Amino acid sequence: MLDICLLGTGGMMPLPRRHLTSLMARFNGSNILIDCGEATQVAIKKKGWSFKSIDLILFTHYHGDHIGGLPGLLLTMGNSDRTEPVNMVGPRGIRKVVDSLRVIAPELPFYINYIELEDDFQELWFDSFRIEAFKVKHRVTCYGYNILIDRPGKFDVERAQALQLPVQLWGVLQKGEEVEYNGVTITPDMVMGPERKGLKVTYCTDTRPVEQIADAAKDADLFICEGMYGDPAKQEDAVEKRHMMFSEAAELGAKAQPARMWLTHYSPSLIKPDEYMEETRKIFDRVEAGKDLMSIDLKFDDEENAENGTDSHIIN
Amino acid sequence: MLDICLLGTGGMMPLPRRHLTSLMARFNGSNILIDCGEATQVAIKKKGWSFKSIDLILFTHYHGDHIGGLPGLLLTMGNSDRTEPVNMVGPRGIRKVVDSLRVIAPELPFYINYIELEDDFQELWFDSFRIEAFKVKHRVTCYGYNILIDRPGKFDVERAQALQLPVQLWGVLQKGEEVEYNGVTITPDMVMGPERKGLKVTYCTDTRPVEQIADAAKDADLFICEGMYGDPAKQEDAVEKRHMMFSEAAELGAKAQPARMWLTHYSPSLIKPDEYMEETRKIFDRVEAGKDLMSIDLKFDDEENAENGTDSHIIN
Repeated sequence: MLDICLLGTGGMMPLPRRHLTSLMARFNGSNILIDCGEATQVAIKKKGWSFKSIDLILFTHYHGDHIGGLPGLLLTMGNSDRTEPVNMVGPRGIRKVVDSLRVIAPELPFYINYIELEDDFQELWFDSFRIEAFKVKHRVTCYGYNILIDRPGKFDVERAQALQLPVQLWGVLQKGEEVEYNGVTITPDMVMGPERKGLKVTYCTDTRPVEQIADAAKDADLFICEGMYGDPAKQEDAVEKRHMMFSEAAELGAKAQPARMWLTHYSPSLIKPDEYMEETRKIFDRVEAGKDLMSIDLKFDDEENAENGTDSHIIN
Repeated sequence: MLDICLLGTGGMMPLPRRHLTSLMARFNGSNILIDCGEATQVAIKKKGWSFKSIDLILFTHYHGDHIGGLPGLLLTMGNSDRTEPVNMVGPRGIRKVVDSLRVIAPELPFYINYIELEDDFQELWFDSFRIEAFKVKHRVTCYGYNILIDRPGKFDVERAQALQLPVQLWGVLQKGEEVEYNGVTITPDMVMGPERKGLKVTYCTDTRPVEQIADAAKDADLFICEGMYGDPAKQEDAVEKRHMMFSEAAELGAKAQPARMWLTHYSPSLIKPDEYMEETRKIFDRVEAGKDLMSIDLKFDDEENAENGTDSHIIN
């Protein structure tokens, strides 16, 4: 349903066995990408997901390891015959940065719509997705994102029939719109049950641990969070470079209580993230060390049950 | 001696098992890079060669697949504590293109010297290297390059002794400079034998086959040449996109008669270049399908003989 892939887990520079950190989400035929470092398009190709369906690209910030792969991706999207506009969201200056990078990708067969974030917290809607952007604390302006799939209440057939509404109007009400029937305005709440639990994925990299992150990730289905260093000896580096220790990320997890949590954005000096996970799980036991191309297909609660009665499965 | 590595063999876009075409050359502690597509830094890392020693970057042209990895490489070079200036050579507009890409790499601990090519043929000197740039025929202005290591004649000890030159002055003459001794000007040719055969590597991608390429590659020790398509059915694409067929590249090889020739810059549609090599070798029998990270350590003729009596060896 909401198919999530952590395309890479590296920070600073791409490595032979570690792509730069970015995330791809698929839902309802539409793809979202968060960040696009050098060679992110190679990771997408490895995963076998579509370039052409990337409708929305969110940027946390404009450091090279988070946007350096954009011109190449745009050229590849152009070669895949995409003609629909692409939406791009990021901190102030997005148009300037992207225009500048497009010196090597000046001609594309699609338009780009730029949406510049201004506030500390901002909500945006794109087709089936709701996006929340929340400011975090890095050396430059940087945002974390929530990807949300809202789920309306159940359509109440009995109430619709009691109102003698023709079936043709049911779909309009299910989409949340009002209808006029026999001179009476029917609003969705008249035929829909209470809103049901949807899906929420929280993504945040390149930041010190701040309260806003725990608030944003509250009860998420998946919380993907940077953990630049595992070794406690690196605490000073983490503070100086405005990054997080594994332990600090886990503390955010313990506060937010997501269903699952993946660490990412490892320092090139961190060879084996798993070595630090036993200690990290003492702080929050549902945290895992993210791995390149790790993915999960998140489903609404009852749909999971309907399908296989088990929890969402992780495919690597 | 002149250590050459074909870092990648892909054209258009980086692929999971094929880096974009670029070349690295090492000689005398100094490194040259030709082109820097997205993830070229990953290929360098795989090869284990040094980022810090890249003193010269040559660009054939500014299409994304030949320069998209530059900002990331510059950031990584900066992180490797390089402080010496880096020289960059390319067609007109190099400063504008690189400045524009540097929107995500604005602060570097080294200067960049830009050298803009103006003429159809241009010669440049950098430390131990001589570079020849020659214009080729693509959709935009594009150059091929010769990397040359010149080799002076042998120092003639008997002639130096006959001139009663003190040993301290020998080295100056060996470097090609004049000396004054006892009021007499001694020129290098008075103590040096005739110039000996040096080394020459010819590199050329993104072009139709034109006479200048065969001229430039004449008797090269290694000729690296684009071959975008192997399948004869792609001839029209090759003409339209200003690229070459394997057969056209091999015809250039047959004219130039290099000691060895490697094809590169394969179309993403070309899965197995080796399938077309038997046919291609009927045109020029010393041509090989280049492979990512293929390398060769070229040596002066008598040094090879002195060392192991065999030809230069290929390491992949």
